Amino acid sequence: MGVVVQLSDGKKPDASIALLSKLVGEDMKRVNALILDKAASNVNLIPDLARHLIDSGGKRLRPMLTLACADLCGYRGEYHINLAMAVEFMHTATLLHDDVVDESDLRRGKKTARILWGNQASVLVGDFLLGQAFKMMVETGSLESLRILSGAAAVIAEGEVWQLSTAQNVATTEDEYLNVIRAKTAALFSAAAEVGAAIAERPAEEQTALKSYGSNLGIAFQLIDDALDYSGDQAKLGKSVGDDFREGKVTLPVVLSYRRGNEDERVFWQRTIEAGDIRDGDLEEATALIVKHDALADTIERAGHYGAMARDALALFPDCDHKTALLDVIDFCISRGY
Amino acid sequence: MGVVVQLSDGKKPDASIALLSKLVGEDMKRVNALILDKAASNVNLIPDLARHLIDSGGKRLRPMLTLACADLCGYRGEYHINLAMAVEFMHTATLLHDDVVDESDLRRGKKTARILWGNQASVLVGDFLLGQAFKMMVETGSLESLRILSGAAAVIAEGEVWQLSTAQNVATTEDEYLNVIRAKTAALFSAAAEVGAAIAERPAEEQTALKSYGSNLGIAFQLIDDALDYSGDQAKLGKSVGDDFREGKVTLPVVLSYRRGNEDERVFWQRTIEAGDIRDGDLEEATALIVKHDALADTIERAGHYGAMARDALALFPDCDHKTALLDVIDFCISRGY
Repeated sequence: MGVVVQLSDGKKPDASIALLSKLVGEDMKRVNALILDKAASNVNLIPDLARHLIDSGGKRLRPMLTLACADLCGYRGEYHINLAMAVEFMHTATLLHDDVVDESDLRRGKKTARILWGNQASVLVGDFLLGQAFKMMVETGSLESLRILSGAAAVIAEGEVWQLSTAQNVATTEDEYLNVIRAKTAALFSAAAEVGAAIAERPAEEQTALKSYGSNLGIAFQLIDDALDYSGDQAKLGKSVGDDFREGKVTLPVVLSYRRGNEDERVFWQRTIEAGDIRDGDLEEATALIVKHDALADTIERAGHYGAMARDALALFPDCDHKTALLDVIDFCISRGY
Repeated sequence: MGVVVQLSDGKKPDASIALLSKLVGEDMKRVNALILDKAASNVNLIPDLARHLIDSGGKRLRPMLTLACADLCGYRGEYHINLAMAVEFMHTATLLHDDVVDESDLRRGKKTARILWGNQASVLVGDFLLGQAFKMMVETGSLESLRILSGAAAVIAEGEVWQLSTAQNVATTEDEYLNVIRAKTAALFSAAAEVGAAIAERPAEEQTALKSYGSNLGIAFQLIDDALDYSGDQAKLGKSVGDDFREGKVTLPVVLSYRRGNEDERVFWQRTIEAGDIRDGDLEEATALIVKHDALADTIERAGHYGAMARDALALFPDCDHKTALLDVIDFCISRGY
């Protein structure tokens, strides 16, 4: 798209989560083992479906955040494994229910669970994973972690209902849209990071620092996701370019283009996104309008703004490998946009 | 149906929950206020849908059990209100998701939420209520209560998945069927009663006594529900006679009738329940077969057996109004079968 936005510290777009993966690698093996253990059931449908999700190639960014934040806070116990697993199960349960609600056929290029096993199984296995997540949290004995994660669960669901009831309104303001992604995406990133400090029983300022880091990282992550849907490399993206458009999702590039557009353009967005009347060439037209109004570049710039806030949130922690790894994650998330 | 089964203590079928309602009446007002408060949201769909469920005329038996069991254990704090609300929200979330999974149009003679607001809203508002339930539990600070209720959440969902994957198998054994209702119905009754002792921090033997009471009461409750579907008074039942049959549900009257039947009768059950090929007169034929094999009387007798176990579970508590009220609930549940 020819968009050039300099990252705040001048890092190149090849920023990666390699350091993070290395630092939490051993712990992630234990998280994965716990995931398999807690997805086990005499009811075969549950491990079958769980295995499908586990093999679907997600980066496991959220549980890695929990592990790295616990390490950053000097946690020396075992319960960060439980919390990381709980975070991943909450995420997985959300995906299962989302796919039912959105009637999605594909996720990361693979058939969704609801296509393979039906909506009914997706709803119920999601409930089961959520139940298992709470059981694992309770095992930690950390009421503070339970408070954080149960709060996130309620916020996520409330955000989804809000999105459902206001879906496909192209006149959504940027503020309203930010509230949606704060609930839908940032709440779990935030909780995933914050519980790392909570389980380590660190002072409030460290806990709120990680909460803020996670929240802003989550917003940046989602905004880049929004941008990629109109510009991404399909293989890298793990989903098809234009999925959001075809599903009538109002994302920030659309919000900005609609506001900045003329009357004809607004009619175009109403017909496609709101009325769902999508014809040949409409995705190309949508992308052209988005580029015309700099909506893609500005979405990425907005993401950079939240990335900078995430970076500053970490400033009070002394320099160490874990801090570097968490900073790299910010650059990684944003560099996906290039 | 001409079924005569004497209740274990000779009580008449007019047993009622009047004493229970009276004893926990004030607390239930606070539970109802908390329910309305925690179902509040800026997202209008949530309180609208919650109000529909709240007004749907359920007896609120489960939260009343929590309150009465806490009282029985001499609890003097405030958190039994939270737990009772959490129990009711867990129940409501389960109903919302069940109706989606079963594609039910009516519940208690009213249109289900999924018919009025759609499957999507039912899935997501269910998730929201579950999140709110966990938040309320966390507020109590009782890890034991959290352990009990999160365990129940996982068991309930696992039971539902099991039922989904083995649905409409008329050769289900009575043991298998009991495992389903232990998970689907008894687990929440059991947890609802057990948390009453847990929040009061009573000795293990009182807690396990209430756990056993709730579990056996739940099984009895479900078996009577099964019987009523083939014999009940529609007005009292709150659902249409024959709903289970029409939905192809394998319940204990069917399990017993299939096992006791001849080859022709088994073909009938396979055609109707398994294949879903239901014709005029089939409900009458099903009911006749169930009566012929004493399956209705025996289902009620089985319920009496679990009711007796629930009764004995309470024996270690000294006599008091609350104990009497909890015993009345057993008789009330079973007397519905007459």
